[in-house]
Amino acid sequence: MPKYCYAFANGKAEGKGKGKELLGGKGAGLAEMTDLGIPVPPGFTISTEVCKVYYDNDRTYPESLDGEIDEHIVHLEQAMGAKFGDHDNPLLVSVRSGAAVSMPGMMDTVLNLGLNPAAVDGLIKKTDNPRFGWDAYRRFIQMFGNVVMGINGEKFEHELDAVKQSAGVAEDTDLSAEHLQDVVKRFENVYEQHTGKPFPTEPREQLRLSIDAVFGSWNNDRAIKYRQLNKIAGLIGTAVNVQAMVFGNMGNTSATGVCFTRDPATGENVFYGEYLINAQGEDVVAGIRTPHPIAKLGEEMPDAYAELVETKNRLERHYADVQDMEFTIQEDKLYFLQTRTGKRTAPAAVKIAVDMVEEGMITQEIALQRVEAGQLDQLLHPTFDPKADKVVLATGLPASPGAAKGKVVFTADDAEAWVARGEQVILVRSETSPEDIGGMHAARGILTATGGMTSHAAVVARGMGTCCVAGCGAVVIDNASKQFSVNSTTVKEGDIISLDGSTGEVMLGDVPTVDPKLGDEYHKLMGWADGVRTMKIRTNADTPHDAQVARDFGAEGIGLCRTEHMFFEGDRIVAVREMILADDEAGRRAALAKLLPMQRDDFVGIFTTMNGLPVTIRLLDPPLHEFLPHEEDSQQEMADTLGVSIDVVRRKVKLLHEFNPMLGHRGCRLGITYPEIYEMQVQAILEAAVAVTAKDVNCLPEIMIPLIGTIQELTFTKERALAVAERVLAEAATTLEFLIGTMIEIPRAALTADEIAAEAQFFSFGTNDLTQMAFGYSRDDSGGFLTEYVQKGILPDDPFQTIDETGVGQLMRIAVEKGRGARPNLKIGICGEHGGDPASIDLCHRLGMNYVSCSPYRVPIARLAAAHAALKHG
Amino acid sequence: MPKYCYAFANGKAEGKGKGKELLGGKGAGLAEMTDLGIPVPPGFTISTEVCKVYYDNDRTYPESLDGEIDEHIVHLEQAMGAKFGDHDNPLLVSVRSGAAVSMPGMMDTVLNLGLNPAAVDGLIKKTDNPRFGWDAYRRFIQMFGNVVMGINGEKFEHELDAVKQSAGVAEDTDLSAEHLQDVVKRFENVYEQHTGKPFPTEPREQLRLSIDAVFGSWNNDRAIKYRQLNKIAGLIGTAVNVQAMVFGNMGNTSATGVCFTRDPATGENVFYGEYLINAQGEDVVAGIRTPHPIAKLGEEMPDAYAELVETKNRLERHYADVQDMEFTIQEDKLYFLQTRTGKRTAPAAVKIAVDMVEEGMITQEIALQRVEAGQLDQLLHPTFDPKADKVVLATGLPASPGAAKGKVVFTADDAEAWVARGEQVILVRSETSPEDIGGMHAARGILTATGGMTSHAAVVARGMGTCCVAGCGAVVIDNASKQFSVNSTTVKEGDIISLDGSTGEVMLGDVPTVDPKLGDEYHKLMGWADGVRTMKIRTNADTPHDAQVARDFGAEGIGLCRTEHMFFEGDRIVAVREMILADDEAGRRAALAKLLPMQRDDFVGIFTTMNGLPVTIRLLDPPLHEFLPHEEDSQQEMADTLGVSIDVVRRKVKLLHEFNPMLGHRGCRLGITYPEIYEMQVQAILEAAVAVTAKDVNCLPEIMIPLIGTIQELTFTKERALAVAERVLAEAATTLEFLIGTMIEIPRAALTADEIAAEAQFFSFGTNDLTQMAFGYSRDDSGGFLTEYVQKGILPDDPFQTIDETGVGQLMRIAVEKGRGARPNLKIGICGEHGGDPASIDLCHRLGMNYVSCSPYRVPIARLAAAHAALKHG
Repeated sequence: MPKYCYAFANGKAEGKGKGKELLGGKGAGLAEMTDLGIPVPPGFTISTEVCKVYYDNDRTYPESLDGEIDEHIVHLEQAMGAKFGDHDNPLLVSVRSGAAVSMPGMMDTVLNLGLNPAAVDGLIKKTDNPRFGWDAYRRFIQMFGNVVMGINGEKFEHELDAVKQSAGVAEDTDLSAEHLQDVVKRFENVYEQHTGKPFPTEPREQLRLSIDAVFGSWNNDRAIKYRQLNKIAGLIGTAVNVQAMVFGNMGNTSATGVCFTRDPATGENVFYGEYLINAQGEDVVAGIRTPHPIAKLGEEMPDAYAELVETKNRLERHYADVQDMEFTIQEDKLYFLQTRTGKRTAPAAVKIAVDMVEEGMITQEIALQRVEAGQLDQLLHPTFDPKADKVVLATGLPASPGAAKGKVVFTADDAEAWVARGEQVILVRSETSPEDIGGMHAARGILTATGGMTSHAAVVARGMGTCCVAGCGAVVIDNASKQFSVNSTTVKEGDIISLDGSTGEVMLGDVPTVDPKLGDEYHKLMGWADGVRTMKIRTNADTPHDAQVARDFGAEGIGLCRTEHMFFEGDRIVAVREMILADDEAGRRAALAKLLPMQRDDFVGIFTTMNGLPVTIRLLDPPLHEFLPHEEDSQQEMADTLGVSIDVVRRKVKLLHEFNPMLGHRGCRLGITYPEIYEMQVQAILEAAVAVTAKDVNCLPEIMIPLIGTIQELTFTKERALAVAERVLAEAATTLEFLIGTMIEIPRAALTADEIAAEAQFFSFGTNDLTQMAFGYSRDDSGGFLTEYVQKGILPDDPFQTIDETGVGQLMRIAVEKGRGARPNLKIGICGEHGGDPASIDLCHRLGMNYVSCSPYRVPIARLAAAHAALKHG
Repeated sequence: MPKYCYAFANGKAEGKGKGKELLGGKGAGLAEMTDLGIPVPPGFTISTEVCKVYYDNDRTYPESLDGEIDEHIVHLEQAMGAKFGDHDNPLLVSVRSGAAVSMPGMMDTVLNLGLNPAAVDGLIKKTDNPRFGWDAYRRFIQMFGNVVMGINGEKFEHELDAVKQSAGVAEDTDLSAEHLQDVVKRFENVYEQHTGKPFPTEPREQLRLSIDAVFGSWNNDRAIKYRQLNKIAGLIGTAVNVQAMVFGNMGNTSATGVCFTRDPATGENVFYGEYLINAQGEDVVAGIRTPHPIAKLGEEMPDAYAELVETKNRLERHYADVQDMEFTIQEDKLYFLQTRTGKRTAPAAVKIAVDMVEEGMITQEIALQRVEAGQLDQLLHPTFDPKADKVVLATGLPASPGAAKGKVVFTADDAEAWVARGEQVILVRSETSPEDIGGMHAARGILTATGGMTSHAAVVARGMGTCCVAGCGAVVIDNASKQFSVNSTTVKEGDIISLDGSTGEVMLGDVPTVDPKLGDEYHKLMGWADGVRTMKIRTNADTPHDAQVARDFGAEGIGLCRTEHMFFEGDRIVAVREMILADDEAGRRAALAKLLPMQRDDFVGIFTTMNGLPVTIRLLDPPLHEFLPHEEDSQQEMADTLGVSIDVVRRKVKLLHEFNPMLGHRGCRLGITYPEIYEMQVQAILEAAVAVTAKDVNCLPEIMIPLIGTIQELTFTKERALAVAERVLAEAATTLEFLIGTMIEIPRAALTADEIAAEAQFFSFGTNDLTQMAFGYSRDDSGGFLTEYVQKGILPDDPFQTIDETGVGQLMRIAVEKGRGARPNLKIGICGEHGGDPASIDLCHRLGMNYVSCSPYRVPIARLAAAHAALKHG
């Protein structure tokens, strides 16, 4: 006969070592504590297997379950010396759900189960406290009615209020035993009215209904949604814990509390928690009374406190991790009701992990796994003071982390002008474009009304490490009158707002922040990570400054240097526009000749900063129309600067207009229709490399051709690049190592990677575009429906945040296999936004990539995530 | 020792049956004719293998070749009783290139090779005609200098003119033998001046240089380009034919001509051709003298004519196909210089193929293969009278075939208004949008300045069978003044133009047309095709009218019925816009309720027309903003109609704006965020099906969900569709067979086809979108660079015209294999534009598809192409 129930009582736990999968987190903790000799009220756990059988068999229970529960009740009665429904010594139990992963809000606890008129008598006899007895009974009816039978809680509150009113009292605690007896009657009526049946007074029946409610709740909408939102998958079900009640509210020798073995906010190794004398657990949680700090318990109840400290130390040692515990003291006797791994902030996680290694409790490997890579984000940016008051105006997408505040401006030019005169500004735009780059650099933070996590604003901001809240649809911008509104609140130019790039919150006024500190523990942990990981970490950086930031964060090269960002700075845009307006190749070459020295200087700066490390430079990628102004004024200005009529500018803008620029004339397509553009860029790269090499800089350039879809595109552009390189090196009478490779960002490139690898010396996955094209989602436009897709469970994640392994990952796997099939030592990396996402980094590791590249501020996250992947998959 | 040369002489041909691959087309024909005992001047063919060896070995010849040629020359001298450079009877030969596929213009012929001063003497002696001898020599030097040595022909013409001037004559023919001797001297000087060497008088040296020039020309730019443009691939090289000269210009008993065994224009079984007395072959081709119709030869040279007729009949029987022959009569003796398969027009191809079956010459299978599927296009649309004069203003993309003419209008509204008052119009737009649909229907033809072969204008026009020239970049439209210009020519509203949708030509004025005739032969041939093909042919049709046209053309169902086209007609657009403006689901449902009866009527009409055949209906696909007006006036009109302020309209337009609508909120994404839209459509489909079934129409609806990328999208939409269907059928108290399936048009859908096939009852490949996303090409924007890509050889074809088998085809193969793996009897078709392209249909057959679907006017093409595929691949 299969075993479904696991008893824990008197230092013996049938479930010892059976684990969370079978017993749930709570059940496993109770079994473990019992086995350790820690005082735990006895009880038993109905395993998660019952939940599985229940759903596998159309909501019916295993035949043997009822008998097994009966047996365990008998044993529990024996352990407690009490009996269900007994006049003298009634057994009262709690019934709690508990899956392997904590799911608060899925199903509340039922306390005091077992009460009925006879048991209330018994309870009163035992405690000599009629008020306590009737209060317990009315609480039970209320909880059972609400939690188990789904009766609206207000129905009970309404009756309670009526009794308080007729009694002329304000607080529940002022009601007498008689009043409470009246409340019980009224509650019984409410119950019967809403269920059509009298309140069940038979304890075994109460238990049956409660267990049924717990298992039934596993697949209610709320629970399903919770698991979706929290990405909890692969669980077979919840367990049910039936446990003898203990009471922290039996007078001043009783108490209840919650505590952590270390401070979960800072990680300091100090006992941390709070408690209340003469109270039940929910009183601490509900916050009606203000609890005391745990240390004070040492004064109030020194014996219990000493036992608490001794036990919490044992638990931490046993689990080798910070424990989050619930305890109750009933008439001076300490009971542990729960222990689980304590949640902690990022700084605490780092400190605890490193401290525990130094205390000899855990290995470095385990320490690394104790810190979530994504959490590190909190350490790398200033954060808002959690104690500060704040007025949240709206919430957008947390596009680039950080805490920023400043005066609102509505144009990039204004941002630059205001900053030039010493202001701090937040740039508010519908969406940004490459023309806004100067203003984005100047701004403390960027707020956009449209666009997703990988919109222009988001990508550029993350690259800069600038805080950004994107796609905040509630923000309605009125550029004409320089103000924006959210519902009825209007924010004018010059008003101060604060942006939380980690939560997406947009707040009114100047919310105070606290600076990040990267302590010794952080550096120790990162050192261990570097020792474990097998993938290199590079960064996406377009300037010497960004490159230096990334290098300081531990980047081992540049995986993506976007040359087009350099095309906007200063006078360059004039030469770029001259090139675009040119009627023929000669005209374009003349304009490009002006750009050449500037572009060469860019690379000199970057190569020098990255001395000794590889630098992957992507040739021009965006469509040419991105370099032209679209507003009347700017077009006139451009016409004046270039000495042409505004009609010429307008006509060119119209000519270059594309319905779907993402799928248009860009990337290597430009390099093929205008080979002179790539030739200038390759010349600048090689000339810069020659120049810095002469100054003893170890320069490792990797030239990357973007948007390759066919081998012919690569052959065409590579041939010309090699010809230019040969010419430059011949003129300099020197040699130099460099690579020519390609982005894999077009599905067709992935599918024909064997052909492409024959010519490409490296692959770099552009997973932004690959995701756009594999799904047919524009990252600029899909924000709206993707949010809904994730909410409705159509997609598990936003595929622009975490690589879709099933589809996009399949293309990547095809590309890696075919690519390495054709060129076994092919260097493969990723330079899409996903390069900084831990789940995606895990996939990259499994695909056998050589490196991931991400924005500078995500380099530490990538280092840790790569270590995690190496530990997990070897 | 390998054999490289194959002699043909005196009725014996070493190359008999060796085929075109080895001997080239010309060489094989000469060998075959010789073997048949047809009088052919003797000679030998140097095989294509030599060309391969030459290029495989860095442009060196096989060692044994020279000796082998020497031997063949000796045999040729023996056969002719003449000798190279002989004073009495010199051997003269022609040297001609000839690959397996005809490549005119790759390398011209060298005639009269072997002439030198001694041989000229011999020739004069032999012919007793000094003028003839010196003229032959000067022609030879000129031809050799130009063709073999690359000397600019003008250099020779210049000298010839000088002599004519000094002689005071106007025509070459007026020059005397002495004059021509002077010309020869001058030509020798030109030769030496430009090559640095004297003209080679040694015939064997002349031959060596000529052979070298022919093989060298195989990979010159012109030849490479020619092969690219004509999609000639897989050839190993050209052969070289060395053949004894015969002369049609040896007086009035000599002649030369070109003829066909049947009329290549009409296909009629009449001898067809033309000739010139006392002329060389190039005189007929050059058109300096007007040749006579071949029948006249019967009067002028009855014996030679009789032999010609007898021989051409033998050749046609031998090859069992129309032959295109060149002949020369030298002093009453007939020689055949070439025979090859005759090119023919589409009507001729059909008639000849069917006639030959009825004459017992070929089987039905061969007859089918004799007609190119694409050619049928010519039969299905009116065409411009080839005899008409025309002024071609510009040439755009031949987007939808046909010959259209009418008065130019610049807006869809004008088109409708002008047609309403009885005019025929050509709609000229920068690009069309769904709002223009009414005007596009009304217009005779559509001309757009931007957009490719699969732009909106092109796709819709092909669907309607309306003539369209798209992406005609030379056309500069000035909407404000209602005119367009091409260079200096301006065309005003109301001016008449003519469009040739098969060539892309835009012509001034009213060019006369001729109507197509689908004769008995066409119907017979199509019947044979239907008997052979294994794939069904469906059509893309949105109206009962289109459906009827397609059915008349032989369509066996509708593969794509686009419901959104129905959303624009008449009052519907008002309800659609009402739905879009609605603030909530209730508002949308109210508007959709108005659309329901109209949409139901649409389906009633289509189901009735397609009685007994399946109808695949695609639920709403385009983004909602396509249904809103974008111009101020129309927005005001919409606001007035719906009783809202224009701001409301403007705001919605702005809200729905997308940067990349192709990758935006459309297809099933709309059906998921607004499930009520698809629910209305499914209700309309099912209610229509119930209604027509009650009237004894056999209705087979297939509901197709567009733009599926994940199985969850399909599950979500399918569940709701089934619920609606169940409700409709329950209310009607009836049952009905219907299918629910999906488009495969997103790369991710192809990659996860196994998951999707678990829910989808059929797949229909949307290869337009699949191509867009696999390549990352917007079909609306890529026209410009794709043309250049094909020209530069980056792509073999425009992938929107012919499916890219390597990439897109790979995705399709994955989808078919995974789909059928999960659901072995999965019905699979294609409804993209490629469904009407013969090469793509061949791929579809090989992929094992059940059907292809194309626009009505391409149904016959698809029927024939499917037959071809079945014959080719079994």
